[in-house]
Amino acid sequence: MLSALDLARRVEAGELSPTAVIDLCARSIAAREPEIGAFAALDIDGACQRASSAAAALTTTELRGLPVGIKDIIDTADLPTEYGSPIYRGNRPGADAAVVAMVRRVGGLLLGKTVTTELAHMQPAGTRNPVNPEHTPGGSSSGSAAAVAAGMVPIALGTQTGGSVIRPAAFCGIAGFKPSYRLIPTVGVKCFSWHLDTVGLFAAGVADVAFAAAAITGRDLRVERQAPAPPRIGIVRGDLWPQASADMQAAIEAAVRAATVAGARIEEVNLPPILAEAWRAHPTIQDYEAYRALAYEYDHHRDRIAHPTRALLDAAASITADAYDAARRTTRLARQALSDVMSDCDVLVTPSAPGAAPRSLSSTGSPIFNRLWTLMGTPVVNVPGLVDPDQLPLGVQVVGRFGRDRATLEAALFLEKAIAQLG
Amino acid sequence: MLSALDLARRVEAGELSPTAVIDLCARSIAAREPEIGAFAALDIDGACQRASSAAAALTTTELRGLPVGIKDIIDTADLPTEYGSPIYRGNRPGADAAVVAMVRRVGGLLLGKTVTTELAHMQPAGTRNPVNPEHTPGGSSSGSAAAVAAGMVPIALGTQTGGSVIRPAAFCGIAGFKPSYRLIPTVGVKCFSWHLDTVGLFAAGVADVAFAAAAITGRDLRVERQAPAPPRIGIVRGDLWPQASADMQAAIEAAVRAATVAGARIEEVNLPPILAEAWRAHPTIQDYEAYRALAYEYDHHRDRIAHPTRALLDAAASITADAYDAARRTTRLARQALSDVMSDCDVLVTPSAPGAAPRSLSSTGSPIFNRLWTLMGTPVVNVPGLVDPDQLPLGVQVVGRFGRDRATLEAALFLEKAIAQLG
Repeated sequence: MLSALDLARRVEAGELSPTAVIDLCARSIAAREPEIGAFAALDIDGACQRASSAAAALTTTELRGLPVGIKDIIDTADLPTEYGSPIYRGNRPGADAAVVAMVRRVGGLLLGKTVTTELAHMQPAGTRNPVNPEHTPGGSSSGSAAAVAAGMVPIALGTQTGGSVIRPAAFCGIAGFKPSYRLIPTVGVKCFSWHLDTVGLFAAGVADVAFAAAAITGRDLRVERQAPAPPRIGIVRGDLWPQASADMQAAIEAAVRAATVAGARIEEVNLPPILAEAWRAHPTIQDYEAYRALAYEYDHHRDRIAHPTRALLDAAASITADAYDAARRTTRLARQALSDVMSDCDVLVTPSAPGAAPRSLSSTGSPIFNRLWTLMGTPVVNVPGLVDPDQLPLGVQVVGRFGRDRATLEAALFLEKAIAQLG
Repeated sequence: MLSALDLARRVEAGELSPTAVIDLCARSIAAREPEIGAFAALDIDGACQRASSAAAALTTTELRGLPVGIKDIIDTADLPTEYGSPIYRGNRPGADAAVVAMVRRVGGLLLGKTVTTELAHMQPAGTRNPVNPEHTPGGSSSGSAAAVAAGMVPIALGTQTGGSVIRPAAFCGIAGFKPSYRLIPTVGVKCFSWHLDTVGLFAAGVADVAFAAAAITGRDLRVERQAPAPPRIGIVRGDLWPQASADMQAAIEAAVRAATVAGARIEEVNLPPILAEAWRAHPTIQDYEAYRALAYEYDHHRDRIAHPTRALLDAAASITADAYDAARRTTRLARQALSDVMSDCDVLVTPSAPGAAPRSLSSTGSPIFNRLWTLMGTPVVNVPGLVDPDQLPLGVQVVGRFGRDRATLEAALFLEKAIAQLG
């Protein structure tokens, strides 16, 4: 894998040129992309041209000319944007999405569009997990996670409506960061659910993803400059715990032991019942909004939408405004309750997924451990580093308080370092 | 003017066909459009074809085949969508905006795209006020308000980020409805500020706009079926009162007298200082977000953006994340304070604008009386019916509690009827 922070430092120090960084990516792409299928479109030549024509200027930007992969539901004016859907074959948006323009503003170079499941929902598009190509990389940001995990790009953008950043990061053994709701704008991102869609980031490790987030948002989110303080961690087992595999349960226990040894304060946290209600309310909000956000596609091209999405939209047509409003009220109450529960800890720790990546290319795995946190709008980081007996990654999910993105990343870095000490 | 509710009833009763309704619009358009300039694109033939080919089916839909005007920052797949900007000359989106698809689902026929100021900001595009063509119709939803006021269409969609629904409705003497934040999705609407942009509606009177909103959202928002109950009204004069013209101040006093006579309970409401702070915070949020939402246009086509918007974006580049976060915190506190203030009343009443439409086509007037309510996310209705000595409309703004859109429309209808009794 390519560490964004390490590459940026070497570019800054004059040890590597932006073109040389692209060469590193190009070599990995040549070696792995035919098998992995992480990209929907590639523009290595374009990135090279920009890197060589503006090399000196790029080395002083926040992103130092690093290449970035963009999930293909995010609009790009100079690369096709097909949303993973045959309806949008050959689509060329008239403008960059806000986050793409923000990446360019800080010296990021677009290396390509990464594969998304259809309309960022569940239908996989063939991308394989670089750790073991018989396994799914997760979804819906399949290509972004796989491209980073295969060392094809140091930074990639994804989105999460259920668990589409954290789950693929966990399955591929990399860091994934879902910031607080609307920290990164969704303008120009194909909408599935306007209250849930959240732009996130992938990179090799926690410090890398924090570096990328800091650069793109212009916020004080870098966490590598000093050793992270020991956080107060709440362990959430709760109703879903029995649905975590034995390996995942063991991984969480190992992470907790590592954090304890490293000096973190750990306590068991029981979520109040309203949070289980909110978990159940998530699909009501998502599906009601999807039926409207994707109204054009559903009404004009229903037969070109794959089964899982079409079935969701068919069913969503009958969700009433009352049911939706009730789900939104539950959400508001749950956010308040979560804020109260977290008043005494910095982050919560839970599994990022039920287990390691399933051995399948026909499913991207389950978002059951993620969707509550998407609905709560809280910052979440997938911490990599643990594996199952088959060496498949097991992700630990670090959930912070709304708006406390820096503290969440810092706690995630602490945990990542503690896990690394396990040896 | 064409009453949407009246037309719908006559279509339902078989007295008018959907084609005949389009004929009524076409006659007004032939008579007034050359002078008024409300439309950026027209598709009378297309609407006629759809109306005649599906006449029987349309008469049973919620909107009964009524023609609708769509502000030209809202995407339409079969009509050009130029966002009022030369950057987007000839632009044809790949999909309808969510709200456009929702209009079609309930039997609305797209009659045309209505003129917007450039990128829904301040640069006017030549539309004239049907009440007096030497005066501005207001903005940014200039064409939507003018088209309804000139009887060219019974329903039009607009958007409000500062005061772009309520102000043009007030200046043109029609009903405007800005629903609670996100009651109508902004998916497919060109973004200026993701926390502020709100889709709204125009129609002849309050019952008409409530009928249209009910049909499009599928919500229980119709208010004409029984006499509205006398509301508890809070009158807000506050810091801005001296900036209302003497005519506007007199209009508010007249509205209050009328409501009192009709049985409403009236009390003076003093807004706590945090609401004045929030009013000042609005531009920080709007401009910070616009610098990102319009990043592509600003970075690639700055010289094709007109002066007021370019100057805003130039200055917005230096707004810090800290300033933005502080403005967002102020907003949260102000929403809570407003909710407390309104615990004892159904709606607040304030001027919709400093006065009648200015005699100018180079400015769309001031949003100072609107932007707080956009920021608060509360439902707002412009109640028409009062005029100044030159017979120019003076709008009364009715502000409801968040999520209480029906109660707000009902109070607005009560006030509209009370004002009509003034004679």
